[in-house]
Amino acid sequence: MIKPTLAKGTRDFGPKEAAQRQYLFDVLRQQFGLYGFQALETPAMENLATLTGKYGEEGDQLMFHILNSGNFFEKLNPNEPIDHSSALPLICEKALRYDLTVPFARFVSMHRSTLSFPFRRYQMQPVWRADRPQKGRYREFYQCDIDIIGSRSILNEAEVIQLISRVFHILGIPVVIRLNNRKLLEKLAAYANCPDRFKDLTLMLDKLDKVAWAELKQTFIEKGFNDTQLNRIEKALSQNTIEELAALMELENEPWLHDFRYLMNLSLTGASKLKTDLSLARGLTYYTGTILEVQVADGSFAPSIGGGGRYDDLTGMFGFPGMSGFGFSFGADRIYDVMQSKNLFPDSIQRAPVCFLHTGNEEQKVCMQAAEQLRSLGIPSLVYPDLSKLRKQFDYANQLGAHWVVVVGEDELQQRNYSLKNMQSGEQHTLSIQQLSDQLSAYFKP
Amino acid sequence: MIKPTLAKGTRDFGPKEAAQRQYLFDVLRQQFGLYGFQALETPAMENLATLTGKYGEEGDQLMFHILNSGNFFEKLNPNEPIDHSSALPLICEKALRYDLTVPFARFVSMHRSTLSFPFRRYQMQPVWRADRPQKGRYREFYQCDIDIIGSRSILNEAEVIQLISRVFHILGIPVVIRLNNRKLLEKLAAYANCPDRFKDLTLMLDKLDKVAWAELKQTFIEKGFNDTQLNRIEKALSQNTIEELAALMELENEPWLHDFRYLMNLSLTGASKLKTDLSLARGLTYYTGTILEVQVADGSFAPSIGGGGRYDDLTGMFGFPGMSGFGFSFGADRIYDVMQSKNLFPDSIQRAPVCFLHTGNEEQKVCMQAAEQLRSLGIPSLVYPDLSKLRKQFDYANQLGAHWVVVVGEDELQQRNYSLKNMQSGEQHTLSIQQLSDQLSAYFKP
Repeated sequence: MIKPTLAKGTRDFGPKEAAQRQYLFDVLRQQFGLYGFQALETPAMENLATLTGKYGEEGDQLMFHILNSGNFFEKLNPNEPIDHSSALPLICEKALRYDLTVPFARFVSMHRSTLSFPFRRYQMQPVWRADRPQKGRYREFYQCDIDIIGSRSILNEAEVIQLISRVFHILGIPVVIRLNNRKLLEKLAAYANCPDRFKDLTLMLDKLDKVAWAELKQTFIEKGFNDTQLNRIEKALSQNTIEELAALMELENEPWLHDFRYLMNLSLTGASKLKTDLSLARGLTYYTGTILEVQVADGSFAPSIGGGGRYDDLTGMFGFPGMSGFGFSFGADRIYDVMQSKNLFPDSIQRAPVCFLHTGNEEQKVCMQAAEQLRSLGIPSLVYPDLSKLRKQFDYANQLGAHWVVVVGEDELQQRNYSLKNMQSGEQHTLSIQQLSDQLSAYFKP
Repeated sequence: MIKPTLAKGTRDFGPKEAAQRQYLFDVLRQQFGLYGFQALETPAMENLATLTGKYGEEGDQLMFHILNSGNFFEKLNPNEPIDHSSALPLICEKALRYDLTVPFARFVSMHRSTLSFPFRRYQMQPVWRADRPQKGRYREFYQCDIDIIGSRSILNEAEVIQLISRVFHILGIPVVIRLNNRKLLEKLAAYANCPDRFKDLTLMLDKLDKVAWAELKQTFIEKGFNDTQLNRIEKALSQNTIEELAALMELENEPWLHDFRYLMNLSLTGASKLKTDLSLARGLTYYTGTILEVQVADGSFAPSIGGGGRYDDLTGMFGFPGMSGFGFSFGADRIYDVMQSKNLFPDSIQRAPVCFLHTGNEEQKVCMQAAEQLRSLGIPSLVYPDLSKLRKQFDYANQLGAHWVVVVGEDELQQRNYSLKNMQSGEQHTLSIQQLSDQLSAYFKP
């Protein structure tokens, strides 16, 4: 006998969680569709040649490799000592998807001649990383990505920001969309007289949400930044709007600044707010223009629940250079956590089926027919399958969380009617099949 | 530069295929819900201890193993020659899901104290098998399983058969549900005077859909079956109904036979038909009672598009014995192929968004506002993001398959109206925003 366990860092989603996650994915899918994004699905496994080297050294280490099937050691020389880094490509040809961006780039490169650009796609699939599991971090988790590739227009950023505000409005989460631009960060480096230290500067900013400025300053003094530089950086960081920053740094009205202002003035759906945030850096090499991150507005959940930005060369690694695009990733697992903690999932998604209970064989058959009739009207129904005591059947309905129970006993059988019980109020009525259908249709109306 | 390729035996699903698959999964999900099945999702990776030995020797060989991360060779003795079968458990702790049944059994065993039995769950997730890829057979494919566990009642079979007829009615595929019972096969072995050769007998039946009876007979003569035995088997196979079989084999009216008749007399939704089929065997060890398979009624697609049966001990391997249940698996990939070939996907699922085209910056801004308004009404819309020539923008709308295009040029900008063009008929009208909303709402009404 095997004691059943889950693989480290992975999760089951039971009925309640699965229904809630389905709701979240349905909302995202629907809104993506409203903005003309089309679905894409790629396989869980990709060839190592597609993935290796795309995520830095850490990524290569955290990737889950798939052992070649059959005699997987046949390419190794049995007389040589085994060394795991040189052996790896000999015993593995494939790895599990590490994100959705590289598979998307592969897809676009493979289908460049048949796709219409600008191409808008969404993709919601799990990815796998051999991270050390900890609270809120799993080895299998979903990414929900949207990208528009093949257009440099700021309108793409604008439509994505409007989409973001619509999604979080529907989910019921007021958010702050923090906006920055890699070009503004370059201006900051110039303003602080350290244009040659752009990389260190963005690294510093990336740490600001974890480390206080006073402490960080000390680290950067040790790294050779001088007081004048740090004072200028501090001053810039204390500005609240793009206009204040433009004034402070004496920015010229270049196209990117015009675009930045345009985005800040977008009208959004619901309670979402845009905020200029110079401290937003989002890594180093990938993004080239607009960058943004989304956070819960009331501060009740600190980590970002989505992020993205403008890139200039997504598919160059696959021989298809010069494709600029804009992408955003919704942090589905974190959004789920926020919705859980704020109780934002509609009750309707967890509605238990109508439970038909009965006192014998003939009664059960009548239940079967009635249940089929209700299902034809879109009313979820189940018939208790065994001939058990009513007490036991009621316990089952209760455990399922049934709001409605229909009982068919000897009386109902003879009089061809149904006792409908509201399990919350305890109220019970004897109804014809038509009355039963009408009342339950009204309750289960979508 | 890397030439991008897919891993062997895997597929991308581009926009059209992904939308069609989504439709299929949505129908299944909705119908599963109507019968009180609840969603379950399990991780792609399971511990080897959970999977190994559950699928026979072939299964163990076709399983995709995941290399331990970090120094995966550390458990091997560098001084000993490497041997792949003994090395495997030392370098791999996990494998990819091979089916949905074993993960379901693991889940039920782990949560036995909190689940309400009978427990109805559905699960629609990919599984992975290192099969040799060929037409219609992939290394990553979806399984769509339903199971009712914790009840021996024939009502479970009945509700699942009703669900099957409802699903294929909605999908538009008339099907034949072939029905058999392992107990009837035991009676056949007794009738043919070979009760000790039950295993060989079912093996023979399993081959009948590929090999003609005359040829098969020869093989079984070589295996030691005699003429009298084979004649009786042939005679039984030529019967068309359970009544004919009962008469021929002089079956007593045991409960299983009563149940068989009950199922054969179920009323189904749509054009589905039930058919007694003694030649249906469905493997050997797993099933203990009812077995069934579904095929396209008009014979245009030979392989079964779903199958299942009654089992008596799903979770015994995880220390939770005696759990009887009934399960059925919809062959999503095959159903998809049938729907493709018969053109059964509704057109509405591939509706392109309304495309807003424009002649300049100001016009584009007006389009942005109108598109947001349409989206609020549930109308998918996109604005051409770049300031390109109208010709190019129209080409793009055409490539997307847009049915509706809205053009905002200088005239429309001045007069605050919109030119709506039906791309199929070529008709064009100048409309107010209200007229535009009304007309497109009617078209996109769900």
